[in-house]
Amino acid sequence: MTISKIQGGVTAARGFQAACCAAGIKYQDRRDMAMIFSTVPCKAAGTFTTNLVKAAPVVWDQTIVNSGNDVRCVVVNAGIANAATGARGMELCEASAEAAGKALMISKDSVLLGSTGVIGPNIPLDKISAGISAMAASLSESLEAGTAASEAIMTTDTIHKECAVCFELPAAEGEGTVTVHLGGMSKGSGMIHPNMSTMLAYLTTDCAIDAGLMQKALSAVVQDTFNMISVDGDTSTNDTLLVLANGLAENRPITEESESFRIFSEALFTVCRELAVMMAGDGEGATHLTEMHVINADTKENARKLARSVVSSSLVKAMVYGKDANCGRILCALGYAGVLFDPDRMELYLEGDGERLCFYREGCVQAFDEDKALQLMSQKAVRFTGDMKMGTAEATAWGCDLTYDYVKINGDYRS
Amino acid sequence: MTISKIQGGVTAARGFQAACCAAGIKYQDRRDMAMIFSTVPCKAAGTFTTNLVKAAPVVWDQTIVNSGNDVRCVVVNAGIANAATGARGMELCEASAEAAGKALMISKDSVLLGSTGVIGPNIPLDKISAGISAMAASLSESLEAGTAASEAIMTTDTIHKECAVCFELPAAEGEGTVTVHLGGMSKGSGMIHPNMSTMLAYLTTDCAIDAGLMQKALSAVVQDTFNMISVDGDTSTNDTLLVLANGLAENRPITEESESFRIFSEALFTVCRELAVMMAGDGEGATHLTEMHVINADTKENARKLARSVVSSSLVKAMVYGKDANCGRILCALGYAGVLFDPDRMELYLEGDGERLCFYREGCVQAFDEDKALQLMSQKAVRFTGDMKMGTAEATAWGCDLTYDYVKINGDYRS
Repeated sequence: MTISKIQGGVTAARGFQAACCAAGIKYQDRRDMAMIFSTVPCKAAGTFTTNLVKAAPVVWDQTIVNSGNDVRCVVVNAGIANAATGARGMELCEASAEAAGKALMISKDSVLLGSTGVIGPNIPLDKISAGISAMAASLSESLEAGTAASEAIMTTDTIHKECAVCFELPAAEGEGTVTVHLGGMSKGSGMIHPNMSTMLAYLTTDCAIDAGLMQKALSAVVQDTFNMISVDGDTSTNDTLLVLANGLAENRPITEESESFRIFSEALFTVCRELAVMMAGDGEGATHLTEMHVINADTKENARKLARSVVSSSLVKAMVYGKDANCGRILCALGYAGVLFDPDRMELYLEGDGERLCFYREGCVQAFDEDKALQLMSQKAVRFTGDMKMGTAEATAWGCDLTYDYVKINGDYRS
Repeated sequence: MTISKIQGGVTAARGFQAACCAAGIKYQDRRDMAMIFSTVPCKAAGTFTTNLVKAAPVVWDQTIVNSGNDVRCVVVNAGIANAATGARGMELCEASAEAAGKALMISKDSVLLGSTGVIGPNIPLDKISAGISAMAASLSESLEAGTAASEAIMTTDTIHKECAVCFELPAAEGEGTVTVHLGGMSKGSGMIHPNMSTMLAYLTTDCAIDAGLMQKALSAVVQDTFNMISVDGDTSTNDTLLVLANGLAENRPITEESESFRIFSEALFTVCRELAVMMAGDGEGATHLTEMHVINADTKENARKLARSVVSSSLVKAMVYGKDANCGRILCALGYAGVLFDPDRMELYLEGDGERLCFYREGCVQAFDEDKALQLMSQKAVRFTGDMKMGTAEATAWGCDLTYDYVKINGDYRS
């Protein structure tokens, strides 16, 4: 295996520092702002929400990433989304970036921004500015600083989410190889049904790579990672996924779709998948992670649609919560996915513990061992496989169960 | 107004009889089968689920409706859906139709069938046949018989759903007019997100109308009634909407798109909308009916998409349950509906009691009277209006809130 898991998150790669603080934006009893800083300029790539209603920081970041300019810093706040805030929201973005630029002695156009929380209110600029000053003065390259940053951006999340890997690439000079690091953090628990992106996820790497190639790798990887999770079918206004690359690993720069590009893409896939699955499993109120694996579909796109349809179904989600092996719910969700298949040929399985229980075959729901099914449905991760018997394409989607707590959390979200 | 509401349901029109019985298919303590019978042959029109996985009775009914042959009878059971039952499911349909044909001395090809309940198990033919015999012997044209039939087809429904209207059309002979009746019943509470049809809905009329024109009217009306409701985003395997017309009103037969056709279509719209809204308000576990009215959209289809997106959103549904006027949720759902609009121009309102509270305008969430908002959100029907400021098209969608009880009902549906 060329990709190795390592400790840490956004500070796992060389030259990246992080900080966080309690700015008192909405939460009064915890840290609610985070900063990521690179000691040298970075290439940036990003994917953003496809929601027509985009939060101000999404518009701000898109402009910077599309410009191709180098970036140095990311500033994130939790509690208020800075969405549906009109022209004032954009002014607040500019003022925040200016404050960070001044504190860090960098251009405001090299500062990326992220916000998550309630839609509607304006972010309090005085608190944001004070937070930025405090964070600029306490940046650290320690792994603990990265972990603290991943905790500070949480909203209804119950666990922080970070992950890092390393891999070898040819050195920029000489014969040997150098070790390249890639790490990241994400947050997200509700309003999760990413389309081209996710809630908030920030990845950092010391890899030397062309910005266009990094964007290409990211856009491809997102399709099978963040875009394959769903908590509640609601595509957020704030979804943002950014990768910063500062080149400090001193690998031979990746400037074409070489073997090094393939290894980098695989590392990116590993980190994105792990962060995405953590988000699905930590869905608001969730007690189970649901995994739908579609195999032998006719096309990759159809495999994705089928898998996503199952993990997005309210009835499948309620059934997973109730540990009820009601496979008709899964079959129904496959049937309305908008994909052609033959219901009389496909097969459906419940998997786990190295075992496989057949739910459905030859057009009929099968008799199965209910005790065994209950045992497999009682595991933290509940896994279904649909064998479409049409081709060789496959895809996996991740979701979670629908619980009383999801209703409770979202029945009174603003207060 | 040319359309008048009257008492009754499927027996409101001349020549239609109904019966029901306790066949003990799944429920042991209530009636679970219903029959509708016309004393003379009927024209039939229908729309059916677009789910690729279709229940056996859906396939059976589609064949008969598409053949254009006259029909006489509908037999419905609750408790088992006869879906995902393969070739055996179709055999059971044929045997059920044969039993009804024998009991009523009609052709089996004039018997329509409907099933609703758990996906997977086979329907018990002995119980079904015994039920059919009992019902054939107890048919009645009373309004009470229609009401009892609408109760017998309920599953997780908490109220039975029936509705009827009458209207005047030119008489077949002479100068005057005759009174035409149209009534119907429906059931549905979960797995409700109709696409081209609804769960189960049966309409009867004594109107004399060409079958093709009736199908045309039905297909149009469905777009703005049953297709505009959502309980949980899950399009069922069994959705069926049928209209039977026996001509006993002795109106001048409708054979072209005349003024009479327009009046018939309006009556059909009235009954379908009322049954559809009753289904949305009786969504599994629901405590509120949610109504999203989109006005001034650029096209009718876009107005429908926007309205449906809002009532289908889990976050909007949880917010309605919590009486939390969190309009960012509505804005977010409009934004991912897949329709282009200008977020800076559109406006969003909460309506009720003849009042209107502005939630969002000029790109910003507005300050509003929270007490007033709580009062409007506390009504049984919670109404939102989105003014897209793009054109003149409008559409309304109906849904319900997401509650603990929805999760409870669907966490253990099979038992």
